Amino acid sequence: MKIVFLGSGNVATHLAIALKAKGEDVVQVYSPNLNHALALANVVGAAAINRLNEVDQDADLYLISVKDDAIATVAAALTNVTGLVAHTSGTTDIGILSSQVKKAGVFYPLQTFSKAKAVSFDHIPLCIEAVDEVQLDILNHLATTISNQVYHLDGEKRKVLHLAAVFACNFPNHLYALANKILDQNGLNFEIIRPLIAETADKVMSNLPENVQTGPAVRADETTIHKHLSMLNNMPELQDIYQTLSNSIKLMPK
Amino acid sequence: MKIVFLGSGNVATHLAIALKAKGEDVVQVYSPNLNHALALANVVGAAAINRLNEVDQDADLYLISVKDDAIATVAAALTNVTGLVAHTSGTTDIGILSSQVKKAGVFYPLQTFSKAKAVSFDHIPLCIEAVDEVQLDILNHLATTISNQVYHLDGEKRKVLHLAAVFACNFPNHLYALANKILDQNGLNFEIIRPLIAETADKVMSNLPENVQTGPAVRADETTIHKHLSMLNNMPELQDIYQTLSNSIKLMPK
Repeated sequence: MKIVFLGSGNVATHLAIALKAKGEDVVQVYSPNLNHALALANVVGAAAINRLNEVDQDADLYLISVKDDAIATVAAALTNVTGLVAHTSGTTDIGILSSQVKKAGVFYPLQTFSKAKAVSFDHIPLCIEAVDEVQLDILNHLATTISNQVYHLDGEKRKVLHLAAVFACNFPNHLYALANKILDQNGLNFEIIRPLIAETADKVMSNLPENVQTGPAVRADETTIHKHLSMLNNMPELQDIYQTLSNSIKLMPK
Repeated sequence: MKIVFLGSGNVATHLAIALKAKGEDVVQVYSPNLNHALALANVVGAAAINRLNEVDQDADLYLISVKDDAIATVAAALTNVTGLVAHTSGTTDIGILSSQVKKAGVFYPLQTFSKAKAVSFDHIPLCIEAVDEVQLDILNHLATTISNQVYHLDGEKRKVLHLAAVFACNFPNHLYALANKILDQNGLNFEIIRPLIAETADKVMSNLPENVQTGPAVRADETTIHKHLSMLNNMPELQDIYQTLSNSIKLMPK
């Protein structure tokens, strides 16, 4: 397939590289910043462009992977293409595209991407949606070439998933950062806690998290909770988080 | 070494099995509940006891792995032993032992243990402390037979580590559980989000978490944050957690 990428951020980068590796033809990469477009275009053998009126009108697929509030603007430049136009956003309705282009879809990879770290797409859930069965088949075919986990989800379910991902990914990572802050202030290295983080995630690969909760809050160990809160006296923000999450753990049905 | 385990919970179980596998001689397992003592004793070829006056007085090492508030009581039964007495608690001072027994130490494994899941001790940080160098050497020798990561930490640093572990393990696991609650209420399976959890933890194995934060809060994407908060209107507790953690992410230095 001839594919144009609109956007050159983390999602576009990882997706373009994965699709290129499976033999797809990435023909153009658009970014308003030409250097950003070039950085990705060079990796996947595509042309870099920084103006929307330069977009190739004959591609099979246009993947819009820009900030949510820029999707509509980019789509407005694709009203005359005959190919399928899909965005990669977890939170944006398909309607933002289908109101402007003939063939609209969504191609949302549920993963956290950093430019610095390569990821294998094999086990990345790809959530797809399209305006009709023909377009859905196209996206499904493409998705299954790079991933073993393809889900057909409507926009409402996709938004739920995106929200759940904030709880399962963004918030835990921030808690790792707060743990590091505590360690660092006391001359301890983050290295010491890495095995615990790895095991905590590994445990829920084969269990449900509510069945493997550990720690003072689930034991209602008030002595330890009070000790911890007093250790955080000089960090009121962390104290607040500790209290809020401990209370929430206590409220979980056993 | 002849070792007596006082306690038969998750920590005692995993530790006893690991030490037994390295050729140590686990001679007794004590629990006030004889069936609990038997369950572990049978696995490691030890005798099960449920009365403290039955404790073998000639062991080399007594590992107290009971609830924090029960340590003092158990130690009181060991005042006449000549062997080393160590507890496995992250939050309890060595003083609770050294005030009662001749040779005191701490042997704290920084890990989350579930009975259902086997763990390899190789990469579990073991934090040790002792009243003198001779006892420290004994604990160090034992620790290095089962783990590559042995740390000599005093009580203050150990308590800091235990607090950091709540942020790095107990709280993230609870957030996984809340993610599952959101998914479940919308007919989605936890399975879909497991790869994201695995990758989130894997990322910080080679990066510091503050350098790989993703999501709406770190982007200051208020549109998405507002959408998410309104999706949580019927779950005020999760709304509160979402707001608290998002605010905290925004406060992190970039």
